Amino acid sequence: VSTTTTINRRIVLASRPDGIPEPGHFRRDDQPLPQLQAGQLLVRNLYLSIDPAQRGWVNAGNNYSNPVAIGDVMRSLAVGVVEQSRNDNYRVGVHVYGWLGWQDYCVANADSIWLTVDPQNGPLTTALGVLGINGLTAFLALNEIGCPKPGETVVVSTAAGAVGSIVGQIARRDGCHVVGLTGSNAKAQRCVSDYGYQLALNYHDEQLSQRVKDACPRGVDVFFDNTSGSIADAVWPHLNSHARIVQCGTAAIANWLPPPVALRRDRDLLVKRLRHAGFVIFDHAAKFPETIATLGTWLREGTLKYRDDIEVGLDRAPHALAAIYRGENEGKKIIML
Amino acid sequence: VSTTTTINRRIVLASRPDGIPEPGHFRRDDQPLPQLQAGQLLVRNLYLSIDPAQRGWVNAGNNYSNPVAIGDVMRSLAVGVVEQSRNDNYRVGVHVYGWLGWQDYCVANADSIWLTVDPQNGPLTTALGVLGINGLTAFLALNEIGCPKPGETVVVSTAAGAVGSIVGQIARRDGCHVVGLTGSNAKAQRCVSDYGYQLALNYHDEQLSQRVKDACPRGVDVFFDNTSGSIADAVWPHLNSHARIVQCGTAAIANWLPPPVALRRDRDLLVKRLRHAGFVIFDHAAKFPETIATLGTWLREGTLKYRDDIEVGLDRAPHALAAIYRGENEGKKIIML
Repeated sequence: VSTTTTINRRIVLASRPDGIPEPGHFRRDDQPLPQLQAGQLLVRNLYLSIDPAQRGWVNAGNNYSNPVAIGDVMRSLAVGVVEQSRNDNYRVGVHVYGWLGWQDYCVANADSIWLTVDPQNGPLTTALGVLGINGLTAFLALNEIGCPKPGETVVVSTAAGAVGSIVGQIARRDGCHVVGLTGSNAKAQRCVSDYGYQLALNYHDEQLSQRVKDACPRGVDVFFDNTSGSIADAVWPHLNSHARIVQCGTAAIANWLPPPVALRRDRDLLVKRLRHAGFVIFDHAAKFPETIATLGTWLREGTLKYRDDIEVGLDRAPHALAAIYRGENEGKKIIML
Repeated sequence: VSTTTTINRRIVLASRPDGIPEPGHFRRDDQPLPQLQAGQLLVRNLYLSIDPAQRGWVNAGNNYSNPVAIGDVMRSLAVGVVEQSRNDNYRVGVHVYGWLGWQDYCVANADSIWLTVDPQNGPLTTALGVLGINGLTAFLALNEIGCPKPGETVVVSTAAGAVGSIVGQIARRDGCHVVGLTGSNAKAQRCVSDYGYQLALNYHDEQLSQRVKDACPRGVDVFFDNTSGSIADAVWPHLNSHARIVQCGTAAIANWLPPPVALRRDRDLLVKRLRHAGFVIFDHAAKFPETIATLGTWLREGTLKYRDDIEVGLDRAPHALAAIYRGENEGKKIIML
């Protein structure tokens, strides 16, 4: 391509959502590609990663990074192929994974690239999910904060999701009793058949706390929480002394400005010596290569299962993002360009 | 003494309090001393330790140990002298610190003894506070959970108390900016003059959150929380990313059945990658001797300050306990027998 004449299709943030981003918060803003500067790459995007965390990247406050500016390309992880390079570390033709955005092409600086993709690990889409942000998050959050030991009980909320489906398999591999919480009976079945869970519960059950208690006869040692809210509140009473709670997401609460109220947990935390810690994957970049190597080995062995949910076309990205907050995806949501 | 004829004065739990124990919840129940069994010691109590944690030891639920039974001697740490011994590890005349109870004499099993007291460290009362549960808690909770680094900001609630007064000195020794929250202007002054704090605030200030913000211009990296409640809520908004919160007490909330409501913290915890953990000293017995050695060195050097608040007479113990929840003590509360 010639960077001076190619028009780059881009989806930009049109207005700032309170809470869930809907398609109306975005618009197309196609622009010619700029020239590459020294050190930069031109990457043609192939697959865009649709992630619950993207809500936080466009909300005004209470997050770990500056929000996407109005008029800027929507922040997104993606896999693409290097078409031009002015950086000796990336030759033309290699596939890369990183901050490439909702657009056809990204003029990327090297610090936007997370990893070079090894095509031997599997289809390119695996680099977005099971070998991307979701697999990395599952593995590192579970091991760095959860620290599961054989025989312990691990409970996971959004157990059939792109992260939870991997957490279940890793915890089962570690010799734990693994219980999943998910949004439908069909997903609960898949948790048990495919994702390592001994038991899975539909979190819409009105007796959820009692169901969790019944499913965890020895109590809960690790709670991998992607939801917060009433789903989490159903689990906390059953935590054992010295339990670890991984706060990896807060999907059950649409808006944190202002935060909702809940029962104060300080006394439980003290008397049970709980450890409750937040996890953000971007802190752990130094461990990405070794973690991908481990997960890639399991994937090639066939002992790590995943499911991709692929839609086609750049313009579907805003709809796909809104849909994942309604729980409509079946596995890792991906946009194929 | 002859164990068969000596009458042991004892204060037992008469009824179970909801929340704060008041003098009416206790009664005297003097009994003859039983004979020593093999392995046991007869300890004559010299000083009783009055501790905020004793509330939890008599409340019905939500605690880390079984509550004291109605009619049993009130659970208490104390220092005493061994008067008879059927245990080769403890000879007559040594001083010991441990679970000796609100009574003149304790027929103690070896597992009730925390430590043998080294009289060279200072007055015997130091074994209860600065070299006892309070010093151990301050040192181990700060270092095991708080992990302060030089230049970081440490905020302590109940900063002039038996634990907080030591936390301030250790954090200052570690090169931290140390800010105390305490219940009166006089105590705030003492925090600064004696206990290592650069700044101390009266937590009754109606603008407490703004005062904390002003006192911590670089934000809060470690929050050593002995209160929970609105005092803690004034600190949480000012926590930095990767801050650690030590939940060492919950003194600001009188009754946890049911727990009060508060703003849900899960989102803050996630986006700031906070680590919030409960601390109970009894988990850390293996580190008591080395910790006492360290604190004892500082004490003998004269670089570790403490204040004892001593009342005389067994029958004062229930009043003294109730008074510490009203913040009436000036330093470590002790009953001299």
